[in-house]
Amino acid sequence: MESAFLKACRGEPVDHVPVWFMRQAGRSLPEYRALRGTGSILEAIADPALAHEITMQPVRRYGVDAAILFSDIVVPYHAIGFGVDVVAGRGPVIAQPFRSEADLERLRPLEGEDVAHVTATVDLVVAALRASDTPLIGFAGAPFTVASYLVEGAPTRDFALIKTLMHAEPALFARLLDRLVDITVAFLRAQVAHGASAVQLFDSWAGSLTRDEYRRFALEPTARVLEAIADLDVPTILFGVGTGELLDLMATAGSSVVGIDWHVDLDEGRRRVGDRAVQGNLDPARCLGGIELGVQGAREVLARAGAAPGYVFNLGHGVLPATDPAVLEAIVRVVHEEGRAGV
Amino acid sequence: MESAFLKACRGEPVDHVPVWFMRQAGRSLPEYRALRGTGSILEAIADPALAHEITMQPVRRYGVDAAILFSDIVVPYHAIGFGVDVVAGRGPVIAQPFRSEADLERLRPLEGEDVAHVTATVDLVVAALRASDTPLIGFAGAPFTVASYLVEGAPTRDFALIKTLMHAEPALFARLLDRLVDITVAFLRAQVAHGASAVQLFDSWAGSLTRDEYRRFALEPTARVLEAIADLDVPTILFGVGTGELLDLMATAGSSVVGIDWHVDLDEGRRRVGDRAVQGNLDPARCLGGIELGVQGAREVLARAGAAPGYVFNLGHGVLPATDPAVLEAIVRVVHEEGRAGV
Repeated sequence: MESAFLKACRGEPVDHVPVWFMRQAGRSLPEYRALRGTGSILEAIADPALAHEITMQPVRRYGVDAAILFSDIVVPYHAIGFGVDVVAGRGPVIAQPFRSEADLERLRPLEGEDVAHVTATVDLVVAALRASDTPLIGFAGAPFTVASYLVEGAPTRDFALIKTLMHAEPALFARLLDRLVDITVAFLRAQVAHGASAVQLFDSWAGSLTRDEYRRFALEPTARVLEAIADLDVPTILFGVGTGELLDLMATAGSSVVGIDWHVDLDEGRRRVGDRAVQGNLDPARCLGGIELGVQGAREVLARAGAAPGYVFNLGHGVLPATDPAVLEAIVRVVHEEGRAGV
Repeated sequence: MESAFLKACRGEPVDHVPVWFMRQAGRSLPEYRALRGTGSILEAIADPALAHEITMQPVRRYGVDAAILFSDIVVPYHAIGFGVDVVAGRGPVIAQPFRSEADLERLRPLEGEDVAHVTATVDLVVAALRASDTPLIGFAGAPFTVASYLVEGAPTRDFALIKTLMHAEPALFARLLDRLVDITVAFLRAQVAHGASAVQLFDSWAGSLTRDEYRRFALEPTARVLEAIADLDVPTILFGVGTGELLDLMATAGSSVVGIDWHVDLDEGRRRVGDRAVQGNLDPARCLGGIELGVQGAREVLARAGAAPGYVFNLGHGVLPATDPAVLEAIVRVVHEEGRAGV
């Protein structure tokens, strides 16, 4: 029987509402903290046995309907030597940020061997998940969001450099995005070739854009990525944060599912994305006050999800490190027992 | 002749579109940096001659249609001894954050003498602005946003503590908000009594809430503040960031004007707030790429502002410290020459 997660992504009826959590593998799990120690996350990702184990931990503990690869959106750029590090508590930092045409040469095409460590992890995870027919979600950063990281060089709240670049040098920005589209497509194709059953594109920073900017600078490259993997016939999820004003535009990019963050009521989010399936959208902060509050929040989300098919339960953003896993365990039970969308 | 700013706030016709900039007094101005040195911002605010001069600097340089008091939303809480410091580059930090009922006692009523330094600054600024009939905007933090600071104790992206408090202990949260309403009202009344011609309520963190949370926990205290100063008959502006989903609710709080951030197209923002005037909403990052890009951005905003009265030009958030003042000078000229809303 095909997984409820894959069916829901395709808008088909399901026997239960599927649930997984963004950043379900990570610091909120004591077994993760015990395993990881102090090394860089990029080192952990480079070790297939370790990355496989980390990917599996939340599947075992929570009984979620999908695994998501333990990886990071900067992995392919690290792999081709762009000079990326992920600093604990801070995020990706670029030694020499993208500044001018000369930097285009540092973004060469991605080859399969560049990410052999990632596909080796995919192999291990897919083999381990076969017994339970649990799908693995692969992922990549959407081109605009990756461009933000490469241009800004460090996490930002203002997006000053990327916005100035795209408005002041639109031709250079377009050439940068062309490179990122190609790398993203190659990275996603590699994951699916090794057995990932679905992919999520994280356009995490799209919410920093105005509607005009999203239309001009972010939508088309994302649509090109999705078009270039359409022949793989795996469900695709497009997700960003603070994207309430953009949901109708994001729904035209071509993904099977649009992720909704917690700012938008889920019924309203469904209305904005039209015939796409939706994923979301419990506020991660609602999971920090104990089981009762978390379950109450989940029930509010389920009520807004309604009864129509095409719904995957998730948080509206990643699991916060301070989350007690017992809260997520309880939410999985409630979603499976009480969810009605498409059932 | 009454100022275009005050008329626009009231939805009346104007002879030109008024403009001011949130955080127009501050690090983007070389004359500010020359004056301030390295002391704490709370020390500068406590010095009326200095705070007066800082308030006047952008009025002189830009010819904006309103001054805004150089102050901070934590000032009244610092004044009553709650133990607040503003750490450069980080924001307000609370030595002993609000945690339980016992902390309510630390939020005693605000007396006029507590903020005598602030009203002394208002006196100086109002006297200096009289010649040009330029209004002074006073301001305060809206109760929910202040509660976020007092409970979290330091800037946060997750709002974990405040959200847990409001859901888990709604009665205590309500008592906290009651205290903050009273202090906010007293602080605003003091500024208006000394000559402020309008006030802005910064509900900077309202955008972290779901619609249900805004309705339950933030809207009513804000409405009570506005109701309690309605007899003063000064225009009021209610502003937050990331509030696209909340604008229709914010419009019911009772302010004259609703501020719109740059995520929402201004014409759509006007639609959402109905018969309220609006203020906004150029992306501050659009001012970082030189005069031409800034002016182009301002023209896009003016086009969406349309011709109906009830419009104040502003950025969608505060001026970024890296902004070249020449860009804002050019924007003021363009708004005054080309703005058509209510003209």
